[in-house]
Amino acid sequence: MIVKVKEPLPQEYPLLRHGQILFSYLHLTEGRIGGCKALAEALIQSGVIAIAYEMIRTKDGFRPLLAPMSKIAGHLSVILGAYYLQIPMKGQGTLIGRIPGIPPAEVVILGGGTVGTSAAKTALALGANVTIIEKDVRRLYQLNDLFGNKVTTVFSNEENIREGLRKADLFINAVFCYAPKFGHSPPIITKDMICEMMKKGAVFVDVATDEAIVEIKPSPKPFMIGDVTVISIPNLPSRVARVATPALANAILPYVMEVADKGWFKAVKENPDLLKGLNFVEGKVVNKEVAISQELEYYPIKNFFDKNANV
Amino acid sequence: MIVKVKEPLPQEYPLLRHGQILFSYLHLTEGRIGGCKALAEALIQSGVIAIAYEMIRTKDGFRPLLAPMSKIAGHLSVILGAYYLQIPMKGQGTLIGRIPGIPPAEVVILGGGTVGTSAAKTALALGANVTIIEKDVRRLYQLNDLFGNKVTTVFSNEENIREGLRKADLFINAVFCYAPKFGHSPPIITKDMICEMMKKGAVFVDVATDEAIVEIKPSPKPFMIGDVTVISIPNLPSRVARVATPALANAILPYVMEVADKGWFKAVKENPDLLKGLNFVEGKVVNKEVAISQELEYYPIKNFFDKNANV
Amino acid sequence: MIVKVKEPLPQEYPLLRHGQILFSYLHLTEGRIGGCKALAEALIQSGVIAIAYEMIRTKDGFRPLLAPMSKIAGHLSVILGAYYLQIPMKGQGTLIGRIPGIPPAEVVILGGGTVGTSAAKTALALGANVTIIEKDVRRLYQLNDLFGNKVTTVFSNEENIREGLRKADLFINAVFCYAPKFGHSPPIITKDMICEMMKKGAVFVDVATDEAIVEIKPSPKPFMIGDVTVISIPNLPSRVARVATPALANAILPYVMEVADKGWFKAVKENPDLLKGLNFVEGKVVNKEVAISQELEYYPIKNFFDKNANV
Amino acid sequence: MIVKVKEPLPQEYPLLRHGQILFSYLHLTEGRIGGCKALAEALIQSGVIAIAYEMIRTKDGFRPLLAPMSKIAGHLSVILGAYYLQIPMKGQGTLIGRIPGIPPAEVVILGGGTVGTSAAKTALALGANVTIIEKDVRRLYQLNDLFGNKVTTVFSNEENIREGLRKADLFINAVFCYAPKFGHSPPIITKDMICEMMKKGAVFVDVATDEAIVEIKPSPKPFMIGDVTVISIPNLPSRVARVATPALANAILPYVMEVADKGWFKAVKENPDLLKGLNFVEGKVVNKEVAISQELEYYPIKNFFDKNANV
Amino acid sequence: MIVKVKEPLPQEYPLLRHGQILFSYLHLTEGRIGGCKALAEALIQSGVIAIAYEMIRTKDGFRPLLAPMSKIAGHLSVILGAYYLQIPMKGQGTLIGRIPGIPPAEVVILGGGTVGTSAAKTALALGANVTIIEKDVRRLYQLNDLFGNKVTTVFSNEENIREGLRKADLFINAVFCYAPKFGHSPPIITKDMICEMMKKGAVFVDVATDEAIVEIKPSPKPFMIGDVTVISIPNLPSRVARVATPALANAILPYVMEVADKGWFKAVKENPDLLKGLNFVEGKVVNKEVAISQELEYYPIKNFFDKNANV
Amino acid sequence: MIVKVKEPLPQEYPLLRHGQILFSYLHLTEGRIGGCKALAEALIQSGVIAIAYEMIRTKDGFRPLLAPMSKIAGHLSVILGAYYLQIPMKGQGTLIGRIPGIPPAEVVILGGGTVGTSAAKTALALGANVTIIEKDVRRLYQLNDLFGNKVTTVFSNEENIREGLRKADLFINAVFCYAPKFGHSPPIITKDMICEMMKKGAVFVDVATDEAIVEIKPSPKPFMIGDVTVISIPNLPSRVARVATPALANAILPYVMEVADKGWFKAVKENPDLLKGLNFVEGKVVNKEVAISQELEYYPIKNFFDKNANV
Repeated sequence: MIVKVKEPLPQEYPLLRHGQILFSYLHLTEGRIGGCKALAEALIQSGVIAIAYEMIRTKDGFRPLLAPMSKIAGHLSVILGAYYLQIPMKGQGTLIGRIPGIPPAEVVILGGGTVGTSAAKTALALGANVTIIEKDVRRLYQLNDLFGNKVTTVFSNEENIREGLRKADLFINAVFCYAPKFGHSPPIITKDMICEMMKKGAVFVDVATDEAIVEIKPSPKPFMIGDVTVISIPNLPSRVARVATPALANAILPYVMEVADKGWFKAVKENPDLLKGLNFVEGKVVNKEVAISQELEYYPIKNFFDKNANV
Repeated sequence: MIVKVKEPLPQEYPLLRHGQILFSYLHLTEGRIGGCKALAEALIQSGVIAIAYEMIRTKDGFRPLLAPMSKIAGHLSVILGAYYLQIPMKGQGTLIGRIPGIPPAEVVILGGGTVGTSAAKTALALGANVTIIEKDVRRLYQLNDLFGNKVTTVFSNEENIREGLRKADLFINAVFCYAPKFGHSPPIITKDMICEMMKKGAVFVDVATDEAIVEIKPSPKPFMIGDVTVISIPNLPSRVARVATPALANAILPYVMEVADKGWFKAVKENPDLLKGLNFVEGKVVNKEVAISQELEYYPIKNFFDKNANV
Repeated sequence: MIVKVKEPLPQEYPLLRHGQILFSYLHLTEGRIGGCKALAEALIQSGVIAIAYEMIRTKDGFRPLLAPMSKIAGHLSVILGAYYLQIPMKGQGTLIGRIPGIPPAEVVILGGGTVGTSAAKTALALGANVTIIEKDVRRLYQLNDLFGNKVTTVFSNEENIREGLRKADLFINAVFCYAPKFGHSPPIITKDMICEMMKKGAVFVDVATDEAIVEIKPSPKPFMIGDVTVISIPNLPSRVARVATPALANAILPYVMEVADKGWFKAVKENPDLLKGLNFVEGKVVNKEVAISQELEYYPIKNFFDKNANV
Repeated sequence: MIVKVKEPLPQEYPLLRHGQILFSYLHLTEGRIGGCKALAEALIQSGVIAIAYEMIRTKDGFRPLLAPMSKIAGHLSVILGAYYLQIPMKGQGTLIGRIPGIPPAEVVILGGGTVGTSAAKTALALGANVTIIEKDVRRLYQLNDLFGNKVTTVFSNEENIREGLRKADLFINAVFCYAPKFGHSPPIITKDMICEMMKKGAVFVDVATDEAIVEIKPSPKPFMIGDVTVISIPNLPSRVARVATPALANAILPYVMEVADKGWFKAVKENPDLLKGLNFVEGKVVNKEVAISQELEYYPIKNFFDKNANV
Repeated sequence: MIVKVKEPLPQEYPLLRHGQILFSYLHLTEGRIGGCKALAEALIQSGVIAIAYEMIRTKDGFRPLLAPMSKIAGHLSVILGAYYLQIPMKGQGTLIGRIPGIPPAEVVILGGGTVGTSAAKTALALGANVTIIEKDVRRLYQLNDLFGNKVTTVFSNEENIREGLRKADLFINAVFCYAPKFGHSPPIITKDMICEMMKKGAVFVDVATDEAIVEIKPSPKPFMIGDVTVISIPNLPSRVARVATPALANAILPYVMEVADKGWFKAVKENPDLLKGLNFVEGKVVNKEVAISQELEYYPIKNFFDKNANV
Repeated sequence: MIVKVKEPLPQEYPLLRHGQILFSYLHLTEGRIGGCKALAEALIQSGVIAIAYEMIRTKDGFRPLLAPMSKIAGHLSVILGAYYLQIPMKGQGTLIGRIPGIPPAEVVILGGGTVGTSAAKTALALGANVTIIEKDVRRLYQLNDLFGNKVTTVFSNEENIREGLRKADLFINAVFCYAPKFGHSPPIITKDMICEMMKKGAVFVDVATDEAIVEIKPSPKPFMIGDVTVISIPNLPSRVARVATPALANAILPYVMEVADKGWFKAVKENPDLLKGLNFVEGKVVNKEVAISQELEYYPIKNFFDKNANV
């Protein structure tokens, strides 16, 4: 059994062996970033049992291995924004805080999921005026329950996104998957929109670091687009590994122990949350979303269960 | 001893008798409203001992007989505003509340004293975005301590007042005395400013009901200035007498009992809070502010104390 | 496709055409108010595809097209109550606020659903002592999670409702459907109960405006029953249309777009939330509750799906 | 220099020596409890420099050596009340908490000073409905600032005290000095009032343990008056000495160090807070309140200062 | 129909009659405490229809007849702890409160379910530093939503439990069922751990009172293990019966009425929440967990439904 | 009249003219940093009327021109700390946030004045465990009123400071003037203490940037002492000038206008707050603290007033 944090690198592909259990983030249904195709193929050819952390999901939709990372990333996006708004970092010199007699900084967050909610909490805590742009009505009401009157929520549409870019001192993209069902749609936010609409000295943080959503390339360092500082640093949680690592380990442990105790077959059969994370079994794609994204043949896990009913 | 709520009316002047103690609101240093000159004269000629509720003041500046009325008036100003913003009342149809996906109503309050703070609390509680315009830096910090990040405070100047009128759905004037030391200055807010700057269907509430501050005449009913509903109803607390009356009575009682116990002379001598409320003694003006406002001769109370040292 | 807010009026019935898609509030399972029978018949005879806003429902029971209206109505019920408790409106002169030394107003709310919760939030925010009467134990615990120690909850039974009427300065009915399964039960609150139990000058607001629940006739203006002001104004949200209209539009938009994109058949087949709102299809009643309420024949939508499996 | 916690006991009187500095609680102006007369005489005859902890006071009225004890006593009064309301302790079986569907316990607190405020915070935190009865209007407003809408405050008068006794499940007396200026007034609350007005199984806690205020004798154990459990345990903070002792030590330390550094004469001359605590100097009563309470001759400290001006 | 609170006692077994409906707590799947075996047999032999309160469960996992008792027990565990930490009760003399300048008491709670959450709320409210030890990641995030930054949560493992025992002034066990699926595992906390790791004068409260979880025998009185006070009092809610009894009655009533209205067969068939509580029917064990725990033959209720399909 | 932000630089000394009014920060009583001696001499020799911003003070001790800068600096100290705790900045990789299941970061703040309180608010808002070390008992109680149970306060002494350094992930010095009256005492925190006691990868922020308090040299860039990142960047507010500049301007304006209106003599005579800021008048030191700190002759302003009584 291999328990990893990051998806296997090409040099690790030859090490994968048939029947071995691999626990890892795989991200095979996300983004346009190259490389995942090769990973999918390696996972098929090796014949490993591959379980994707990010797909394990409880009945109420909670993703226990994604939540800690999302919470951390959302929090850090605001800390980084607050730092890069300072004058020595070429920012406009705004404080994400509340000083009597001075209107507070405007923080606009696109997306009210775990990352966006975490960013909103942090920005509110620091004292900003916070606007969340969210397209799901159900979620808008949950945000209202969570934040009460402290946050402004607006419905996500092009006009409100543009308005948000214009007024933001700090704009955070916390949208990860944008309507994949509608195929290869254009990015929600283009480089030109950032450059032309945002204020001089403002900061744009892209937590998703996915060009399919925001048309900017990820980079380990902040950079400028026009007069705007852009932060699109991949894997923010690794910056605070002392917290991120045990948070992830705690969350993985029960699943690893269950597989160790019962074997993978019994474990996924009895634990539907874990089953949702199962991507590959001995060369077959057993997750429908992965099959569709990677344009591979789908093999329902039910078939395995039926064949091995007496296990 | 006469204990009244409202200042004596002209028909009551003849009833005042020499040496009698009168407890009442007198308001002799405020506004431009006619009538107070006559009252001052009646109080002098009658020879009463007149104590003005609104001037009794504790060491830390708290006015125990004004505070309940101010708190009530500030609260009601928002309730009235919320009511008159509704469409059947010719308002623009805005809710002073927070509905997910809809930017909240903007409530702008001029003045962060007891009335303004009470109005801000109520408007915040209902869900508005609240801005307080205040000129005193010390007070700005106290408002920040009180409201944390929930309210936006801006420094009071002409630009910020104009900006406030423009953005407000509900604008509340909670400034009562505007720099009296600079003499007959023009009103802070003119009829034209309301008419030209405010949005169609917005509401303007003037709690001060003093033309010297806002250039509108008090009226028992709301009326329109252009497309703006204006509420300048005098004596708002009387609308909720079931609360206002006992609140005032509770606050007056200890002073009345002290005077009843000790006589007025000993009471004001021993209680400096009460002394601050003493306006007239047997035909003499013993309060400096009243003397200046009414252009009458000032007679220091110290003289009485010295003359009666052995009382 | 017709997208309306209010249910079609009799004069509009002839305009409905076979196969046309109608999005609207329909309210065919509620109340005793005449007219809906005719509407149901018109919808059948016209052969429209009729989707009822109020019945669209997410997996967790949230009704995205009802929630904004309920939230607004609950909020306004308290604003109206606070206004009509004032003396010039013939109220007893109570403030829904908290003045030091004065016991606060008592607001009693029957029903802890979306309307009741919204009313409770507003009344608490203003400073009242709030009691919620609720019959569902699960909901009582959710209210406790939401409000902590700030609200008193009591179990709904006749004794507690009577006690609530007696102590309330403002009583709000936020119960909409009362045990319809038990047939034509008497109203929960009768005119006599209001008249005899409530205090002189108190206010009763009936948000449901349904005589089957509270035995009072809806009216666009408040009126008196004995010494109690009664507010049973239909369609409160229309008073703040500037907020209610976009809140509704935001919520409808995704459903309308999905139907426009896919056609109604594919849309309801793939989106179970939307399917719950489908009432009529080409002359057939495809919603069981509507069929029962209107005493019409029920035609399961499954039959359509089976017949059109290859669409 | 002697630094004690409790006032000197009779057997310790002979140990006091002329010119020695004594730091201790002395309580010479409080209550009717016997013994203090003897203490005052011992302090005079010994010629010590006696500083009373409870009288040290900062400019804004804060008593740094009384505050920790008051805060602890108020907190414990509620814990003890919550414990003795349980059935095995002969209480009525009420929880000072909030269970959905059950009206909360009523806690009534007489006096809104440090003890009463601490008790109110604790009772609120546990979930009770809390009423504070307070006579000072200024304090009523401070309590409102502190507690917002969470507490009910009522003006202190006989009617409200009786009403409070009637409705309380737990009644706490947190009034310590009752109008000493009006001489030997009767107690505010008599044994009969407790017995006749309070509910069966209710609890009465007297934090003051002073028969002059509440007509009950202090006792180290709770006892019954009729059906009411009465707790009048002296020196509650000693029950949690692990907290009380360092809290007191921290607070005393700066004063002790200042006296050690400068000598008592220079210390009291330069530090007006400390001076307020000085009761006796070499056989003379230098505190006016002590002189009045003990009917001893008052010797102004100014005389010492003048005589020793060149020290 | 028999509606009881506590499970039937041996002397009551002969009174149970065939076909009679018994509503009661039964606790047949919990703990190692003797007696339940006999109860199970009595319930089978009598042929009653037995519904176990503690097993009735709504769709989202809420147990309406267990929640009030759990909430009360968690709350009382802190009150008892706070009382027994006092010096006269042999405690170390710590206050569960917050005194400026003194580090607060440490309260550690094992288990973040309803009991643990209630205990945490109460301990936080009193002012303690609270740590919750919880093994379920999903629950850890719910606790974070509920308590925000106010509580520290740690993952449940042996190291963290030992660390918790070491630092706690008050340790509360709120874990009830410990991995029953793994068979007869040793207790989580042994007598030795309490004795050796906890501080002198600390308090240990075991709300579960189950030796299978914490190796201590329940006792109606607190007792000492080494220098630690141990409270393992069964049935804490009975101490506050005035609250517990109506809270339970409110929750039971709708189920009892439904059974009275429809008969038990129709009621359990139509109400899946109630069905979950059904344990025995006419001598057959119809609940799988009960059958496994008691090692009895399981008879699926479906069989009854099929046999009586036309009822 | 010259209105500056920073104290005059040596090259500006020759520009100062007799009788001119200078408004500026002067800092003549603080620290050991060279240069201020020369400034004091220049101010004397030039004969300017010099008013020091930092000394203007209202009756209740509030410093309106220092408060905004302190609030900003305290806030930024936490943002900088949170940034430099990240791994790419050589920090230990800790998040100043709260992730379920992970104990939160420890932030220890020395000094509970405006800077320390602002830092504590920010650190709490982000989710840290916050300890404030403060020596003044009165202030400890104010912090308790402000933060409730959310912060741990400890009395300032050497043991607690050492303990704080040991446990802190982020340690912030917010003490500015350390007992100047006791002369040249050693720094509170030495370089060795930071190096030896703090954790590897921790961060130390010195907001005071005064070697007399913390034995480290100010530097515009963070640097390492052993394994600890040290931030002692002077003038933090200049990093967010867009906020700091108008905040200061707003606060200065009323004083500048009063001097412009009345002339400096009348202004300081009538406004005691402003008078407290007056340091030099025509070559004379009129502020006692400045005279003592700079070892110059003190000339009481009263003398000016007496000489110019008829102005």
